[in-house]
Parts: sequence; structure tokens; C-alpha cells
Amino acid sequence: MPIIPVILSGGSGTRLWPLSRDSKPKQFLNFGSEHSLIQETALRCQSEIFDPRPIFVCAESHRFLIAEDLLNIGVSADILLEPARRNSCAAITAGCLCAIARNPEAIVLVLAADHQIPDIAAFSKAVSQATKDADTGHLITFGIQPTKPATGYGYILPGGQISNHDCYKVEKFVEKPDQKTAEKYIQDGYLWNSGNFLFKAQSFIDEMMILAPEILKAVQEAHQKAESDLDFLRLEKDAFERSPSISVDYAIMEQTKKAAVFTVDYQWSDVGSWEAVWEVSNKSDAGNVVIGDAEIVDGRNNIVHSVGKLTTLVGIDDVAVITTSDAVLVTSKSQAENVKKLVTNLQDNGRVEANEALKIFRPWGNYERLDMDDQYQVKRIVVTPGGVLSLQKHRLRSEHWVVVSGNPEVTIDDDVRTLEPNQSVYVPLGAVHRLANHGKEPVVLIEVQTGDYLGEDDIIRLEDVYNRNSDS
Amino acid sequence: MPIIPVILSGGSGTRLWPLSRDSKPKQFLNFGSEHSLIQETALRCQSEIFDPRPIFVCAESHRFLIAEDLLNIGVSADILLEPARRNSCAAITAGCLCAIARNPEAIVLVLAADHQIPDIAAFSKAVSQATKDADTGHLITFGIQPTKPATGYGYILPGGQISNHDCYKVEKFVEKPDQKTAEKYIQDGYLWNSGNFLFKAQSFIDEMMILAPEILKAVQEAHQKAESDLDFLRLEKDAFERSPSISVDYAIMEQTKKAAVFTVDYQWSDVGSWEAVWEVSNKSDAGNVVIGDAEIVDGRNNIVHSVGKLTTLVGIDDVAVITTSDAVLVTSKSQAENVKKLVTNLQDNGRVEANEALKIFRPWGNYERLDMDDQYQVKRIVVTPGGVLSLQKHRLRSEHWVVVSGNPEVTIDDDVRTLEPNQSVYVPLGAVHRLANHGKEPVVLIEVQTGDYLGEDDIIRLEDVYNRNSDS
Repeated sequence: MPIIPVILSGGSGTRLWPLSRDSKPKQFLNFGSEHSLIQETALRCQSEIFDPRPIFVCAESHRFLIAEDLLNIGVSADILLEPARRNSCAAITAGCLCAIARNPEAIVLVLAADHQIPDIAAFSKAVSQATKDADTGHLITFGIQPTKPATGYGYILPGGQISNHDCYKVEKFVEKPDQKTAEKYIQDGYLWNSGNFLFKAQSFIDEMMILAPEILKAVQEAHQKAESDLDFLRLEKDAFERSPSISVDYAIMEQTKKAAVFTVDYQWSDVGSWEAVWEVSNKSDAGNVVIGDAEIVDGRNNIVHSVGKLTTLVGIDDVAVITTSDAVLVTSKSQAENVKKLVTNLQDNGRVEANEALKIFRPWGNYERLDMDDQYQVKRIVVTPGGVLSLQKHRLRSEHWVVVSGNPEVTIDDDVRTLEPNQSVYVPLGAVHRLANHGKEPVVLIEVQTGDYLGEDDIIRLEDVYNRNSDS
Repeated sequence: MPIIPVILSGGSGTRLWPLSRDSKPKQFLNFGSEHSLIQETALRCQSEIFDPRPIFVCAESHRFLIAEDLLNIGVSADILLEPARRNSCAAITAGCLCAIARNPEAIVLVLAADHQIPDIAAFSKAVSQATKDADTGHLITFGIQPTKPATGYGYILPGGQISNHDCYKVEKFVEKPDQKTAEKYIQDGYLWNSGNFLFKAQSFIDEMMILAPEILKAVQEAHQKAESDLDFLRLEKDAFERSPSISVDYAIMEQTKKAAVFTVDYQWSDVGSWEAVWEVSNKSDAGNVVIGDAEIVDGRNNIVHSVGKLTTLVGIDDVAVITTSDAVLVTSKSQAENVKKLVTNLQDNGRVEANEALKIFRPWGNYERLDMDDQYQVKRIVVTPGGVLSLQKHRLRSEHWVVVSGNPEVTIDDDVRTLEPNQSVYVPLGAVHRLANHGKEPVVLIEVQTGDYLGEDDIIRLEDVYNRNSDS
């Protein structure tokens, strides 16, 4: 019986800020691969032991990112939308209920969408072997043979062997250690806790009934009342929000007597810091990892990620320098944990850079702010072929559009026409308008907005093919 | 008799890249002051001992920058334009000839435009005292009492006392030392060589006749044939280019028997590295210097200069991080000398960022590229009140202008009109056009260029109030 992958896309990945932001977190980024981490995760589960239709559990606001990523690799999936963040236990419960609806006997493999496991064959083999122990009702976590005394991971101490495979009782789970403790853990045979699990969906639900009935009840109701919306299954908000927010480790794995750890020694990373990205990336002779446009004079063991402008390093070692169009981060690689603290500070100060990138992704394409002032704002708008913006109007701004490529269909009040590159059009304040791309090439246009208020919330949607609220 | 300041604005300041670039070098930037370094230098020479009309020697391409900086502080000057870079000896010679033309007995104070001396009273007092030794024909260099064994400066060993002031014979000049040698210099009573001089202009010219007659002859001819152009005196190109390119230290000061050193102990810096900027700037309790928009978590003794976007530092000490709209520099403060090497590398690779900033200054205002691609380019154009662009046309591009503030007068072929904010206009390929601001507020407009070639050199100037070549 094929294993159903349940892929959790719940993280916000603030440790990889400013590249990763709430508006496009880590799982949607690619690190030295043509595929994003979530695409790699999906592709990792396409061998014959898996049901080819994985189940994703993701935040409402990321649904178009995930749909586009899956479309681009030709993977069909059930996508469960969480109306609120309720941590991993609720998310896994929802995934299990979805799997049971497909097959009451289903075995599920629970994976984080933002981890990296390069050796797919070793991964598939381990999952396949562990299935035998899942069949007997164990809740299996994958324990990774450590390659160094990492302080960024939790650890597991394995106990007595369960079967003639690499499957053991769990002696104990422990939190992220300090350096010295981590070294002792390595000597004592502890394993990294990968946060990836394998079990029969019903075994998990049975344990939920005993150990976390409140979560189970809330998620069951949210799942029963869920509504289909395009390719998505939208969990019911009120019920889901009643679920306590708690991790699966605390709620189940550390409590259940059915916990088991399956030891593996393939390369695994949670890509949880810029140092981790440096570790898994190809390096120059001087140990530098360079992604994008950068120049290094007399520097070693650095990681530079530069989008849209030149980043230069002179006479400096062991740093991470991340340049994006609106924010730059410079950090000692070893200090990466503090990046999360920085992002929290920025959030507390109401800085938009904390969560949102300048380039904003929408189901119809994307836009990026190029310039702004009190009285105007300049954006580059890209509409992908087939993309249609909502029929809308603004109360406080007018817009000028200059087409630089593609052939947009422009509706302004009763006038509908298709423009050529180098044509421009004016959208007066209050005019009902729509932009659509029925061509085969992307439409690129420069929009100049003028007015007394230029916030994204000055938009009245009259008709939207994507059924969006005003803020998504 | 008042002293005539001769202020040399010849440096390109690559050690402060990417803030300082050939298109707007260090002397035109401000560091913790409302005034640029060149403005501070001019204002330093406005006490009663000075002729209120200084002489500036500067590169042709910087003439509008210097004129605007002087206009803004209400200082009138003679501005000599160098048609080529021929190092400090030729520049000082030109300045002396200009001073002699004003008064054959003139005493000149030669200052670099890009040094910092905060204590104006101490400075004026020293200059005033040193005048007595200049009167007797000495070529005086100012030697600064060192405050640390700096490796970025040349040193002077003073010899026997010349007068009852702090004026001494020069025992020897020495080049920038390594750390150990610098420490020995300090013990042995060496002084920093400030590169600032005081002498009778004629005393200097007399020594030129003996020690550097070829330079003198070339510069004399360039000065005789110089042409007035608006507020500038343009040295004649062919003659000036015949001058050997050599520093005043090599050509004169290290050769002449009339050299003297006047010792001073006021605070002086050549602001020659990001470490030097850090040293002269106000610091937080943690020793951080922050200019612009930055956030530091757990970092000490850093300097951050951030223009137009957020720059963040996490868990890192003793670095300089400079963020501009098109380039970022991260360097260990102690390694600042290598920044020059980086800029040379960038120049060798043909990188426009090496010399030009995105924001380009013109006599009529400035412009900045916001976005570009093969087929289009977006610029923000600011025309200052009274600014007039040349009457021009383009062979390969058309332009869309959207006015966001001010009231530009727009000429397109035979049509002349004044636009309001939120109006737009199209400039077809080949149309003769001009933009002018006859209002009292700056004009800001967004220009979208489309075409097969978008280089700055696709411009045919038909009429230009500023008498420019196509490349300035």
C-alpha cells in the first residue's frame, strides 16, 4: 500500500531573513537548486512507494505560492488551508484526517516542506524499511546520525531495538543543547531529531484521542466543515481556531508509549540558518558561497546572497551577507540564531521589511515597488499569461500604466482594449478597471500611482476570479 | 595681507567606495555634518586672516557639484577646471598662478578639499603663526602630532627649529609605514604629513623653476590660454596635458632646501578609510556609528552607512557596512586599504558601479535609475527650480513622462506646455524635446524609456544652456 506524504508548510523561516519572509518563506525559496525546498520535498516523494498525490498543509496566505510551485513540477496534491497558525500537532492531525478519508488504513509520511535531503534513494529506502514498524502501530520519528555537535537541533536518545531494522524505542527527547552538551550527546549516541515522522494515520489519531482530545475535536470539526475552493480544501475557521497551539513533539511524541526512532545516516539539514545554507552549498576554493552578483577580495568561508545589486566583501571571513532590494543583513555565521531576534525587533518596530518583501506574489503574477514618496509610488507589474487582476477601483489614487512588454487587455469603465508595448493609459481616480493577460508572453508594465493615500488597502474589488479577500 | 586659500579637489576617494565614486567623490559627501567636506574646508577659511574668495582646483566633471556646494554656503570662488588629472604639483602650480594674478605677493594656504579639522580656532591660529615663516620664503608643510601609530599616513621627521614658533627644518619625509615602523616613528618624534601647505605663491613658483620647470611651463601656458566659462576658468587642455603627473611631495617638498614643517596638535583626519570615518564620528554606547536606516543586534564598534534601505547587523563587531542603491560593501574596519583594490577590480571588469552611482547629478538637477531591462528603463528625474535640460532628441528610444510633483514646462517639437502633477506626456522616438522648471518647487517626474538601445549616449544636444559635451 503506497505511503501518503503529508507535507507541512507552516514555517515562516525568519532565521533566513531577509530572503525568507512571511510573505514568501523559506520553503518557497531555492538554495543551490533549480527547485524550491517545497518542490524538492514533493519530488522526493514521487518514487513508487508513495501515493503520487501528496497532502499539503499550509497557511491560507501561501496558497498561490504552493499551487504555482506544484504546477511547475507537475505534481497534483490535496492542499489543506489553515485559517490560523496552530502549530504542528493540529496540522498533522488535519493531514491524517485527509489521508484516512482517502484510505482508512493509510500510512503517512510527515515531512517538513523546508528541509533538505539530497540522497533520495537512501531516503526512500529508509522510509520503505520503516514502514514495517509503522504497520505494527509505532509512531516513528526519523533520527539522523549526527555529523557534528550541532546546537541548532533537538536530540533523541535511542533505547532498545524494536525490530531487526534500525528501529529503536525512544529513551528520551532533549531540547537544543549548548555546545558542550551537544558534544556529550554525540559521544553518548544521541541522534538529531529531524521532525519527520512515519505512522499509520489511524495510529496517530488513536493517540490523539488519548493525549490531545481537544486538538483532535477542533481539527475534526474544521475538517468536516471544510470547503473546497478551486484546488484547495479550506479548513473551517472557527473550529480550527479552537485548537490549542502545541507542537506534535510536546503533545504526542514525548508522551506516547508508541514512539520509536528509526535511525538513518543520510545527509539531512533543516536549512535553519545562513550557516546551514553555507554548509549545504557548493563552495569556492576559499570556502565562499556566492549566489547572485558579488565580488570578494581577501575573504574566506563567507556566504553571500545578493539579489538585484552588487554586494562586495573586503578582508572579512566567516560572515553571511544577504542583500535584497529593501534590506541587507550582515551577520557572523556562528551568530545566526540571533537573526530571529532581529526580525522580532523589526516586527515590534512595525517595520514592513520584517514580513513583506518588495516583490509581492499574487495569483496573477507579481509586483514590486520601485520608488515611493508621500505623493506617488512606482511599481513594476508582471502579469503571467492567463493572469487576470480583479475588477477594481480606488478611492484615493489614480494610475498611469506604461506597457513595456506583452499585450495587456485593459478595461477602464466601459472601454476594453488591448495595448501594445510602448503604449500608455491613464486610470482616473474612481474608474472601474481591470488588467488581464490573454497572450502567451508575460505582460510587464510600469505603474505610476499618484494620490493622497497609496496604501494597498485602497482597493475595492468588484469581481475576482481568485475569490480573494481584499488583503490577499 | 590676507591669505588666499587654494583648495585642491582632485581626489576620487575610492577608499570610501561605494559612497564615494568618481561621479561624486568624497569631498562632496558629508560625514556627520550638515556640510560636505569641501563646504567644511571652504568655511574653515572664512575667518579674517583669509581672503574670502578661495581658489579651487577641480576636475572638469565635478564643476557643477562644486558650484552648487559653494552656492549653498554663500562662498564665491575662482574655480580652476583641470582638463586632465596631472596630480598635485600641477594643480598647486595652477592655484599659485591664479593667486599671483590676484596679488604678486600672495601667501597661499594649500588644503585638500576632503580633510577634516574640527577645531577651526586652533587651525586659524596655527596658520596665522606659520605666516611669519612663509614670509621669509619657507615652503611650510603642516605636521600633525600623531595620536596613534597610523599606517595610513606618511610621516615627517622634524629637524632644527627655524623660529621661535613651532616651525622646524624637515629632516626627512617617509612613506606610509607598517604597524611596527609606525610605532617606532611615534617614539622618535615623527609627525603625520597632512599634505596641507603654506607659502608665498611666488616662493613656490621660484622652486618650480628650479625643480620642476617642465610642469611649470605646461601649467603656465594652460593658465595663460585659459578660458572663462560661466563661473569657471577652464585651463587649456593641450598645454595642461603636457604636464608630467607627479605629486608635490616628490617634485618639490622632498627636494627643496626651503621645506619647513609647522607642528600642530589639533585633530586632523584625511577621512581616508571607513575606519577613519568611524574614528571621527559620534558613537553609540556600544561604539557603533550609524548613518541612515540601520538596526544592530549584538554588535560593537561597527560603522553602518545605509542609503535608501534597511541595513541590519547581527552578532558582528568591527566592520564597516555601506549600503547604497546599487552596491553594498562589507569590510573589516582594519582592512580598509583593500577597498581601493576592490574598486580597481571592478573597474577592470567594466562594472559601472565602480565609478558611477545610480543617482547622477547634473547642473539642472539629478536623475536615478529605478529599474531596467533589455527593452525599457525607468528613471526618477528631479529638475531644480530654474533648471533647464538641453534641447535634445534620441534616435533609438521613446519616453513617457509622468509628472508627480511640480510644474514642468515641456517642449515637444513645436508644442510647448506646462504640466500639472498627475499629467503625463509621450515623447516619440526622434522628437525634439526639452524639459524645464520655471516654478519655485522642484519638478519630480517618472520617465519610462522604451527602445532597442537605452544608453546615455543616445542623445543629440541641439541647444544647451550649460555648454556641455554629450558626456557631462
